[in-house]
Amino acid sequence: MRISVFIATSLDGYIAKPDGNIDWLMEKRYKLEGEDFGYSELYDACDLLVMGRNSYEKVASFDEWPYPGKRVIILSRSLETLPEPIGKVELFGGSVSELMETLRMENKKYLYIDGGQVIQSFLKEGVVTDITITTIPILLGEGIRLFGTLPKEKNLKLIAAQGYENGFVQSRYEVVN
Amino acid sequence: MRISVFIATSLDGYIAKPDGNIDWLMEKRYKLEGEDFGYSELYDACDLLVMGRNSYEKVASFDEWPYPGKRVIILSRSLETLPEPIGKVELFGGSVSELMETLRMENKKYLYIDGGQVIQSFLKEGVVTDITITTIPILLGEGIRLFGTLPKEKNLKLIAAQGYENGFVQSRYEVVN
Repeated sequence: MRISVFIATSLDGYIAKPDGNIDWLMEKRYKLEGEDFGYSELYDACDLLVMGRNSYEKVASFDEWPYPGKRVIILSRSLETLPEPIGKVELFGGSVSELMETLRMENKKYLYIDGGQVIQSFLKEGVVTDITITTIPILLGEGIRLFGTLPKEKNLKLIAAQGYENGFVQSRYEVVN
Repeated sequence: MRISVFIATSLDGYIAKPDGNIDWLMEKRYKLEGEDFGYSELYDACDLLVMGRNSYEKVASFDEWPYPGKRVIILSRSLETLPEPIGKVELFGGSVSELMETLRMENKKYLYIDGGQVIQSFLKEGVVTDITITTIPILLGEGIRLFGTLPKEKNLKLIAAQGYENGFVQSRYEVVN
């Protein structure tokens, strides 16, 4: 199964401010006409999204639900139900390996995983196949980190690296599991 | 005064393992014939190096002193003397701004600063002019971080970004102070 991370971080490795705020990466000065940095290619190709409770609550607070028609699994051991489920959202209370097993049975081929906690859990489990990081030209100084501890070091294979006019640097890696 | 950071980090933002080990970035598979990733250009051009006690002790443990003939200032409030000074090494016990003042009086134009603590101190002081980060294709999971807290967010201007055959990605930024 292909399991892809596609995420933006500050140069100091934060995906959000301490309170979850991501306005800093949505700033107008970063917009490039007609450029989505490869997002829609991934989004259109993936079978479903997996994210954690925090990411879900963040995304659910947007004016518009950004995943209409797309299956989204919220991985959470603490939630019993989703307060106000939006779109094709499902709650999954099991482990990463239980989720993988379930999705394999359903013959799913391609997951897009999002959010710091979920990404860290999948990396620890050794099942992430590729990581695309878009580095935003800012130092936040504090926030929610993309990466966490690992049972052991993980080597990566660089597939592509590209700088953009707006100061973004995107690097794409395959994970050597 | 130009104050440059030129450093390598793991993709998860560590400049060394928890014990200071940097063997992981010296691995043979990363060597590219005739390529020093811009290091000698910076090294030759800078007036002097500034580093902290930890970096000094690390570098002093190498078989060969890597800065022969180059002035190196060790910024440390705790050391009274340098146990076995090597090369043109001096100890400075004052603050970053006191060091800057001293070097301005000496008409110095270009500092190369190294080591996590020193880089963080200079960034907090708002005096770093440019940062070149070479990202090594590995996740360490733990270690000594390049970046720390800041009094406020800092915007950066991307000057160049480049991927290398060995999987390194180098990004060069000007700091908007």
